[in-house]
Amino acid sequence: MHNVGFFVYPGHQLLDLAGPLAAFEAATQVAGPPLYGLEVLSRAGGLVRSSSGVPVATEPSRDANVNTLVISGGDIAPMLLPDETQAVARLASTTSRIASVCTGAFLLAEAGMLDGKRATTHWRMAHRLQRSYPAVEVDADKIFITDRNVWTSAGVTAGIDLALALIEADHGLELTRQVARELVVYHRRAGGQSQYSPVSQMEPESDRIRIALAFARDRLHEPLPIERLADAAHLSLRQFGRAFRRETGETPARAVERLRIEAARVRVQDGSEPVEAIAQAVGFTDPERMRRAFIKHYGMAPQAVRRIARQAGKPEVNSS
Amino acid sequence: MHNVGFFVYPGHQLLDLAGPLAAFEAATQVAGPPLYGLEVLSRAGGLVRSSSGVPVATEPSRDANVNTLVISGGDIAPMLLPDETQAVARLASTTSRIASVCTGAFLLAEAGMLDGKRATTHWRMAHRLQRSYPAVEVDADKIFITDRNVWTSAGVTAGIDLALALIEADHGLELTRQVARELVVYHRRAGGQSQYSPVSQMEPESDRIRIALAFARDRLHEPLPIERLADAAHLSLRQFGRAFRRETGETPARAVERLRIEAARVRVQDGSEPVEAIAQAVGFTDPERMRRAFIKHYGMAPQAVRRIARQAGKPEVNSS
Repeated sequence: MHNVGFFVYPGHQLLDLAGPLAAFEAATQVAGPPLYGLEVLSRAGGLVRSSSGVPVATEPSRDANVNTLVISGGDIAPMLLPDETQAVARLASTTSRIASVCTGAFLLAEAGMLDGKRATTHWRMAHRLQRSYPAVEVDADKIFITDRNVWTSAGVTAGIDLALALIEADHGLELTRQVARELVVYHRRAGGQSQYSPVSQMEPESDRIRIALAFARDRLHEPLPIERLADAAHLSLRQFGRAFRRETGETPARAVERLRIEAARVRVQDGSEPVEAIAQAVGFTDPERMRRAFIKHYGMAPQAVRRIARQAGKPEVNSS
Repeated sequence: MHNVGFFVYPGHQLLDLAGPLAAFEAATQVAGPPLYGLEVLSRAGGLVRSSSGVPVATEPSRDANVNTLVISGGDIAPMLLPDETQAVARLASTTSRIASVCTGAFLLAEAGMLDGKRATTHWRMAHRLQRSYPAVEVDADKIFITDRNVWTSAGVTAGIDLALALIEADHGLELTRQVARELVVYHRRAGGQSQYSPVSQMEPESDRIRIALAFARDRLHEPLPIERLADAAHLSLRQFGRAFRRETGETPARAVERLRIEAARVRVQDGSEPVEAIAQAVGFTDPERMRRAFIKHYGMAPQAVRRIARQAGKPEVNSS
């Protein structure tokens, strides 16, 4: 039996635990014979409050016998206390595979386990992870990343995608598809997590990068090559490209495309403007480019986005 | 403050609780002032084991003061014990809004709260819900359904979609979008839950409907009007249409389309056959019809499905 240990601490996000837990549980149900032993661990054992206030019962991590260790995300300050970091480092030294959900990557980084590795975390915290741990190569636009025996995943529900990927590595495609069906999720989500995160909520460290983003946002309908953005930031092309990437986890070109898509999506969803007019207004040179960008980011064409928004505006209601 | 009470029982699915809980929790974080009071309830209070074995701490339901009641799904036998049903009926009589996640609909049905209403549940259990509670109008192909003050949702992760819809009803679109971004999920998922459920796992009650489905599966490349399927089942057109709908929650035409899409998806994902050839082989009269069906069911065109499968086959690995 392969034992999966889930490590939590005061202020952990319950969904970061429950999502992967349900996936491993379903794998065992679907397969028949029990594939995974599941236990929830904390430093000292006993009831541990989640960020929502709901406590879960845990076992002390020092007694655990774990093959795969999964660190839940949650509030960062209590997670990074030295006692927690040491408990995880001790556990990790005995496991063959280590994974984190959401901000759980901070705990792995604090314990030095991500040094020289590629990793991801919640899109809103990616720049903070990169700044705090420069030896980690943070990529904010992945649902999950594998680097050697360390798996990190994006925010909250991405923990389910991570667990599906671990199950697929252990037991193959067909079982994993069945698990995904049980949970009513896609086996493999399209795109990275940046499709869920608005560029407008990126928080670059420096004023210069913030200025460049604001400059772009005000001129979406104009051509926005990296040279113009670097000029706006008063940086050389090379300085700008590096700083932008370091602070946002994205290239300038991708960020501009996402600004355009976000602006377009609001107009596609909420209005009745022709899609062609929207494409022009937000700076896509033609509607086909906008269509491809929508499919890449949202998994569907603008017309489908509009149709869903309309259907959702008329929900399935039988009012009496 | 609007109090949301989550009702659980021995054998509940922890993800059915944690998903909606995280959404209401995030709504409060995003909004600033606390919007929702959250409590986890059970009949007697205390630690209650989830289906995974992990216990959560709960309050006794009789003391609760709840505006929205959310019933988690899970193992059906312990859920339907008379004590549990009575506790829920008592709670429900004091709340303004009642919701269920996944098989939680069985508890509402058992308490008579779904009689004469439209409702949904996990796709695998929809036919059982319909058979056990004929006074409920079950629709297996929705992510969630609202009928007057009762909201039911599809399997497991659909509880997150349900919570987002409740939050949108309370606080509007913009806040709900922000909550979805925090959780890294789509604010509104495309399509119904049938996109996640294989027709091949439908379990019609009667041999005749099973025979008709098998007949269709063997002849996907031929025209399959309802008349042919009714003949195969030795039923009149009218008897067949009704029985099919009652036992599967779908129309025969939709089921045939889904059989075709499922057959196509496997070939699109796993092989390198031209999409046109696949469309023909599974009985779509032309590739454009198959493309539209893919977008309706999976939110993306066949080419995008293939691309994702290929990318996933080469995961983000930095092997050492």
